[in-house]
Amino acid sequence: MMLSNMGEKKLIERLRQRLTEAGLRAGVVADMGDDTAALQQPNSDKLLLFTCDMLVEDIHFRRQWPGFTWEKLGWKALAINISDIAAMGGRPTYALISLALSGNTEVDCIDQLYSGLLRCAQEYGVIIIGGDSVGSEQGVVIDVSLLGEVEKDRLIRRSGARPGELIAVTGPLGAAAAGLHILEQGDPSPEKGEELIAALLEPKPRLAEGQALAATNLVTAMMDLSDGLADDLPRLCQESKVGAKILADEIPAHPACQEAGLDGLEYALRGGEDYELLFTFAGDNLSAITSALEKAGFSPPLVVGEILRPEDGIQVHRPDGSTSPLPEGFKHFQSTA
Amino acid sequence: MMLSNMGEKKLIERLRQRLTEAGLRAGVVADMGDDTAALQQPNSDKLLLFTCDMLVEDIHFRRQWPGFTWEKLGWKALAINISDIAAMGGRPTYALISLALSGNTEVDCIDQLYSGLLRCAQEYGVIIIGGDSVGSEQGVVIDVSLLGEVEKDRLIRRSGARPGELIAVTGPLGAAAAGLHILEQGDPSPEKGEELIAALLEPKPRLAEGQALAATNLVTAMMDLSDGLADDLPRLCQESKVGAKILADEIPAHPACQEAGLDGLEYALRGGEDYELLFTFAGDNLSAITSALEKAGFSPPLVVGEILRPEDGIQVHRPDGSTSPLPEGFKHFQSTA
Repeated sequence: MMLSNMGEKKLIERLRQRLTEAGLRAGVVADMGDDTAALQQPNSDKLLLFTCDMLVEDIHFRRQWPGFTWEKLGWKALAINISDIAAMGGRPTYALISLALSGNTEVDCIDQLYSGLLRCAQEYGVIIIGGDSVGSEQGVVIDVSLLGEVEKDRLIRRSGARPGELIAVTGPLGAAAAGLHILEQGDPSPEKGEELIAALLEPKPRLAEGQALAATNLVTAMMDLSDGLADDLPRLCQESKVGAKILADEIPAHPACQEAGLDGLEYALRGGEDYELLFTFAGDNLSAITSALEKAGFSPPLVVGEILRPEDGIQVHRPDGSTSPLPEGFKHFQSTA
Repeated sequence: MMLSNMGEKKLIERLRQRLTEAGLRAGVVADMGDDTAALQQPNSDKLLLFTCDMLVEDIHFRRQWPGFTWEKLGWKALAINISDIAAMGGRPTYALISLALSGNTEVDCIDQLYSGLLRCAQEYGVIIIGGDSVGSEQGVVIDVSLLGEVEKDRLIRRSGARPGELIAVTGPLGAAAAGLHILEQGDPSPEKGEELIAALLEPKPRLAEGQALAATNLVTAMMDLSDGLADDLPRLCQESKVGAKILADEIPAHPACQEAGLDGLEYALRGGEDYELLFTFAGDNLSAITSALEKAGFSPPLVVGEILRPEDGIQVHRPDGSTSPLPEGFKHFQSTA
């Protein structure tokens, strides 16, 4: 079977099973089912977080895109990893950068890439300590490995959601996917979708939001929305062994989508790379969570649905009363472009 | 300026300077100048080691090579990272695997790749905890991030070599580069160079050797030979701010090179990917180091030269009495093939 027929979800499930069968999991608190691995450390009340995310030219970005710069590529490569740490309620610490570049790359481009990496690192308190630079006969590949830490009692995994709890996100959805659409289709013109394109090229990880949520000790499950609600919510449900109901008219489509004449709900449901946090909590705790986010300077949680029993599956309730299964979102191993 | 004109050494130096200027180096004991980063951990007498190494199709390997298997690719991707931990005197612990694969990759190939990763992990006591799998429109890229640990007083860096000390390696050199030559040129036939090809495709990190050497507390500087003596010794000398003298007739050319009709000395000097350890120590400690290696079941150190003062540069002394500067070795950012 070819990878494109299997898809990422099944591949991950398959690899996870093999790694689990291989045994020897001493010290591992979280692994492939979560945004980052979490590891026990001797004599410490903190867990070590460890994650990596790779960006591949012509899959995740194109140098020909209007608005593309090497500086933003550097920012994004680190930012998406910081987002994984944010999703665990943690704090990022040290990063390594692996780069594959063709020999005809201008050194100035690498300088700009590092400017973006360093700008992001300084913004979020990360220390870049080195990496690997290798040749490539084809496109650019940048893989960031990031360490982080979180107090043992603050770690939030994907697996803690329970039926009856609320499902919320930290902000509006769909901007990055709409930006991708504009860059790839040129419709509407990039000038009209500047905010959407910026969301794609220069995502802001919700690090402080994740920490504020973790500090409440009231969030039962959390992850970042890297592949979109329609792909990511099922992952959270699978880890928590629950179902879910999404209310279509509560989904916070990014207002810039509508302004650009795009169907905001579709992008909000199916689009990836928003890097907002998706999280669950008991309804009784809504005001405490609202107040914690507001105290930290952020908007209240945007409630989009409710956790159901596993046998209920994952449903979208539309304003007209109709219910449908959640559509699928972003596909890996197929060109996004 | 294009990257191919600058070369890896200058690129690393440039990036290092930028990262250092960026400040904020709290807790960093070793970084870009060494095989791995070494980080302080609160309440621990151990340092955290953190490294990554990337393999890119058609730069580091070709699927068309006789003897290539996905299983061996998996082994090698992890093994070269373990070698970096070995070079610090450490013990590897947890690994993440980033994979870029095209959608038409057979799932069976990924299974084999993971078989090789897991075989290597089990052999060297590593736990694979997850990673990232993304699409690629071109070749395969595999980047492994590896954590490890080492007692603070056992860490061996590249920077401790002093004039007058001996330079040694843990085993014969040049086999992997000769294997690469055979695979790329078909001369001699792959059947005649099986041992050399195996050295390239399935390298064995010298983990136990590194630990035995670290336990003596007598080794002043160490690194692994990933790019070959002619490229790697200057790096060690640069970090230690010393010069060096290599005795050509002491360089342990791999005997299989000569058997295959190849110039062993050239491959031993200029060839990469042997993953033997290169290390330095005071001549008075030769017998203690020999006995430590032999007690652990390994060959005595193979002494290849002597550390000189920085102003002496790096020289090769040939049996006829002639002296020449060390030739350059493996070139990054140019296709190896």
